[in-house]
Amino acid sequence: MITFENDYSCGAHPKVLQRLIETNLIPQPGYGEDAYSESARAKIRAACSCPGAEIHFLTGGTQTNAVVLASLLRPWEGVVAAQTGHIHVHEAGAPEALGCKILALPEHAGKLDAGELRTLAATLLSDENVEHMVYPGTVYISHPTEWGTLYTRDELSAISSVCKEFGMRLYLDGARLAYGLMAEGTDVDLPLIAELCDTFYLGGTKCGALCGEAVVFPRQAPAHFRNFIKKHGAMMAKGRLCGVQFDVLFTGGLYYEIGRRGVETAARLKTILARHGVPCFMDTPTNQQFAILENDRYADLRKKVPVGFWSNPDGAHTVVRFATAWYTEDAWLDELDTILS
Amino acid sequence: MITFENDYSCGAHPKVLQRLIETNLIPQPGYGEDAYSESARAKIRAACSCPGAEIHFLTGGTQTNAVVLASLLRPWEGVVAAQTGHIHVHEAGAPEALGCKILALPEHAGKLDAGELRTLAATLLSDENVEHMVYPGTVYISHPTEWGTLYTRDELSAISSVCKEFGMRLYLDGARLAYGLMAEGTDVDLPLIAELCDTFYLGGTKCGALCGEAVVFPRQAPAHFRNFIKKHGAMMAKGRLCGVQFDVLFTGGLYYEIGRRGVETAARLKTILARHGVPCFMDTPTNQQFAILENDRYADLRKKVPVGFWSNPDGAHTVVRFATAWYTEDAWLDELDTILS
Amino acid sequence: MITFENDYSCGAHPKVLQRLIETNLIPQPGYGEDAYSESARAKIRAACSCPGAEIHFLTGGTQTNAVVLASLLRPWEGVVAAQTGHIHVHEAGAPEALGCKILALPEHAGKLDAGELRTLAATLLSDENVEHMVYPGTVYISHPTEWGTLYTRDELSAISSVCKEFGMRLYLDGARLAYGLMAEGTDVDLPLIAELCDTFYLGGTKCGALCGEAVVFPRQAPAHFRNFIKKHGAMMAKGRLCGVQFDVLFTGGLYYEIGRRGVETAARLKTILARHGVPCFMDTPTNQQFAILENDRYADLRKKVPVGFWSNPDGAHTVVRFATAWYTEDAWLDELDTILS
Amino acid sequence: MITFENDYSCGAHPKVLQRLIETNLIPQPGYGEDAYSESARAKIRAACSCPGAEIHFLTGGTQTNAVVLASLLRPWEGVVAAQTGHIHVHEAGAPEALGCKILALPEHAGKLDAGELRTLAATLLSDENVEHMVYPGTVYISHPTEWGTLYTRDELSAISSVCKEFGMRLYLDGARLAYGLMAEGTDVDLPLIAELCDTFYLGGTKCGALCGEAVVFPRQAPAHFRNFIKKHGAMMAKGRLCGVQFDVLFTGGLYYEIGRRGVETAARLKTILARHGVPCFMDTPTNQQFAILENDRYADLRKKVPVGFWSNPDGAHTVVRFATAWYTEDAWLDELDTILS
Repeated sequence: MITFENDYSCGAHPKVLQRLIETNLIPQPGYGEDAYSESARAKIRAACSCPGAEIHFLTGGTQTNAVVLASLLRPWEGVVAAQTGHIHVHEAGAPEALGCKILALPEHAGKLDAGELRTLAATLLSDENVEHMVYPGTVYISHPTEWGTLYTRDELSAISSVCKEFGMRLYLDGARLAYGLMAEGTDVDLPLIAELCDTFYLGGTKCGALCGEAVVFPRQAPAHFRNFIKKHGAMMAKGRLCGVQFDVLFTGGLYYEIGRRGVETAARLKTILARHGVPCFMDTPTNQQFAILENDRYADLRKKVPVGFWSNPDGAHTVVRFATAWYTEDAWLDELDTILS
Repeated sequence: MITFENDYSCGAHPKVLQRLIETNLIPQPGYGEDAYSESARAKIRAACSCPGAEIHFLTGGTQTNAVVLASLLRPWEGVVAAQTGHIHVHEAGAPEALGCKILALPEHAGKLDAGELRTLAATLLSDENVEHMVYPGTVYISHPTEWGTLYTRDELSAISSVCKEFGMRLYLDGARLAYGLMAEGTDVDLPLIAELCDTFYLGGTKCGALCGEAVVFPRQAPAHFRNFIKKHGAMMAKGRLCGVQFDVLFTGGLYYEIGRRGVETAARLKTILARHGVPCFMDTPTNQQFAILENDRYADLRKKVPVGFWSNPDGAHTVVRFATAWYTEDAWLDELDTILS
Repeated sequence: MITFENDYSCGAHPKVLQRLIETNLIPQPGYGEDAYSESARAKIRAACSCPGAEIHFLTGGTQTNAVVLASLLRPWEGVVAAQTGHIHVHEAGAPEALGCKILALPEHAGKLDAGELRTLAATLLSDENVEHMVYPGTVYISHPTEWGTLYTRDELSAISSVCKEFGMRLYLDGARLAYGLMAEGTDVDLPLIAELCDTFYLGGTKCGALCGEAVVFPRQAPAHFRNFIKKHGAMMAKGRLCGVQFDVLFTGGLYYEIGRRGVETAARLKTILARHGVPCFMDTPTNQQFAILENDRYADLRKKVPVGFWSNPDGAHTVVRFATAWYTEDAWLDELDTILS
Repeated sequence: MITFENDYSCGAHPKVLQRLIETNLIPQPGYGEDAYSESARAKIRAACSCPGAEIHFLTGGTQTNAVVLASLLRPWEGVVAAQTGHIHVHEAGAPEALGCKILALPEHAGKLDAGELRTLAATLLSDENVEHMVYPGTVYISHPTEWGTLYTRDELSAISSVCKEFGMRLYLDGARLAYGLMAEGTDVDLPLIAELCDTFYLGGTKCGALCGEAVVFPRQAPAHFRNFIKKHGAMMAKGRLCGVQFDVLFTGGLYYEIGRRGVETAARLKTILARHGVPCFMDTPTNQQFAILENDRYADLRKKVPVGFWSNPDGAHTVVRFATAWYTEDAWLDELDTILS
């Protein structure tokens, strides 16, 4: 069976699983205080050139976003995000369930524009009725974005500058960061992210782990962040599960290798789609490709291979997500090539 | 001193105050179970041609919106509102503080469009990822809107039909309903609102009372609504305060008289603004007029008369709200006429 | 008609109402920024010997407790209260609705014991699992308590010392403070409360106002407290309503006069109950008396005069609350005397 | 290295890990809709003799309790639990963070008493002020309890009857259910639990899995429960991780085998403690033993072997938890025997 439905269709990268086996019966303290988590933290700090970073492991993306936002936002603040931001569209209201209002801005290929962000902050903070409004406290971006696109170094710097100017925190959702880091032509790397963002997370679930996301506070974490984790049901008794996995992912460049594989297979996928006359919704350099199919062709295709529904831009077409990942095999692409013929 | 800053600058309509004096020392049960509240409920039911309505009195608009939405929305639902909706812009995140996500739609002179609402509901409910999204559960409109505009009978019917089609509740915020009901040319009255909406409130604070809003459930109220009121800090020990006031407001047509006075003074205000070459942001039939002033002229004006800041549409201009109310005197308009000369 | 059901059965003290009439048509800014609120604040600061106090007016007790606790507690903290504390028993879960856990301690005539408080704080803060627990952040007391009893100066000082020792804030709910301040033999006055507590409120609703509570932060208020008020639906558009009322209550000693009247009528009530062989549940020096009646006698009594149900200590008896207030007339006590005969 | 610190010190039972390896590269749908989760559900339904049960997999205990309670409680309700209940003491306020008030009852060896529960429900529901109180909506018990004790069939039936009588739901937290089911002399099995409870969960994290808890609704689940899971950050993208694990745990009786091993090692542990004159806080039939040590002896012991701090019953003693699990080796007990000599 083959699949392009998403990037979490298989289990863990074999090296991750192997290490879980090796460490399985070595007793460790619970709740993230195990030796593997400590080792993983040290490796992530090194990868980010950020020796003082505070790092916590959580289980999944929605949970991570909600807990981080709850910890960053003060009660009178909200979070700025693109209209298409994952937290705004695909998290079932998880931020709002913790009281966080989202201040939505237009998206440009899934990205925030620094100029529009500046206007929003300047307008809100100078509004004479601001006491009746929600202050812009944190800016949420994802990299890759919900559309698989990437910020450039300049774009990220510009957003970071606006945040500093208005006293907002910058938070980057890196659910698929491995794929973003290895995209062709990107000039954004981990040290840059750590320098420009106040908080970000390195995605594990979609980048080789069974589950797990690594939240990084490069400089200063909110007070009592572990209580936030626990209070919102995100603290694992067997914290070792995330620790072991991230320790492997950041050993010998595995995280990057996983990213590279996803990006390379996506590039080949793009070629195949083009060859069969399937247009893409936008040009995307990472592991997700958004193709536009006539509804009939979509209905037919999904009988043969799992793909992801994205949206109906009009009555006759469906935008379909094709995702690759570390586990996507060349043979799957061959088979897709045949199916599309 | 004169003012056009808002419609809550003075106390209560003298008849309201008079009745508070008359009833002051007559003991009554607390928490809305007093005879005055009962009498007011009966009069409101009659005014709405809605003999079975359940009616509760709350203190203010933000509180009312938050408590009503919390009671109407099921945990997987959110509320649809216009981008400019009061709950989305000017309530400091009160709905989100109770976990309610707002699904924002474009505004058309402050109003929702039934067609866009239909598209939103149809799109969301047919999205294959809807489990990861927030369902459209309730539709929030205000009448008059945040821009002082009004729905027509046809527009309201169309929105109500879409709500019924998709199983959504329709909630109308009537903070300034008295002014809306008495606007020239409107074809929307209380019985129509009660017929088309699942819930609405009759504003008191801005329409003659010291404080108080009357929430009307024309057919069926959420179970244990009084617990919602209490739990969200909105139940007054001296419920009589609202009861007495609404009893007076709905005696002898006072609520409409108040509305008429606000609308008439606003019409004269509009003429004065026009005479002095001050353009309005849009044509508004109720008691709020939104004028566009050069920033300098605004700075100068506000030294002479309190008006309300609304927004800065560009670097050089300010949109300024002039509000009239039941207490606006003819002499105030004369004085404004002089000031603007 | 007479009543002993509660202390909010009538409207406002006539002087309060008189002042509402006098000020009714003088325009003022909204949201608590009016001249009357400012004047009231100055008088309350003087009454508390606390010239730097920050003061806000809210509408009712449950709302005030919830908003204040939400503003005082950091996300990892809860509030310590007596088992019988109003917030724990009679607020329909309002604190929890804002995420505040209550850490309940035994009550002693409705009061917290400083020694038990010390043990709780010391135990919790030294617990090796404290990250999985709720930290004691604020201590809630009421004065008078839910049982109408009062703390002594020594008791209050001892609790305050424990709070300081463990970095907890002390919050005093003064819903019926007027009656507490004027109780015979009390050695607790406003300056002492302001000195020992981090926050407290002066009750208006039960002490002569139509509605309204004055929250006092003697030294430092939480950042953006006005946003908390707005966000939780507690900000009145016509803030003048509370401002005018508290301005009158703190002019010429009216607040104390109201308290004295409530206490004196309660003392006479106590004598009447005793004369008719009705035992009290405990000895209470303020305006509420808790009598123990056989169920039959209670059923009979309530047909003749409204009183408040409190509890059923056993199958055969009911504890009944008799409340007096500023409006209780001597003739009412005479009539009760006759009824009990 | 040996440990008795808790029952989550090692990874997964080797059979669980083995199956994760076997299934690792077989693509599956996400979010719990994979074939392994389906298979696990079928096996759990069979084990519970409950063919119509709805079953969901979540990640950890605190999360599971919070999400289940949020879904069961209506807005005017709270949850009844023992003073020592896990949700009341050791979950950092997670239930309250979702607005759930806990109504605490005395504990009897960690258990609720049906008679006291009946009194609480009867008293609350007949209180004339119940609108100002929190209704008892759900009853929370754990089995084994926080003290490792067990309900009998009669006790459970009695509690269930009280729940039915007052319209309350019964929810059983089975974080350590495997150990409870295999305790010597217990007359409570899975079909009985499924018959008497409205909801319960089978713990995985502490019973052989890397993570995961299986929530069972034997008859009817709350509407849109999957939205609750997602909204509270508890839905795993790779739902297969829990599915595979529970599929193994309920194949060939592994869950019971794991329980038996924990109970047998605990029995031997108890003998060792007794032999060395270490008293236990209470007699406990499951995998946790609570020993009372002089503070010095505790300080000394923990240098040699990890154990769990529980409480300080007085200034001189510490209650220490010794936990065994499926991974506890006989050699560890031998070593403890030597250490205690």
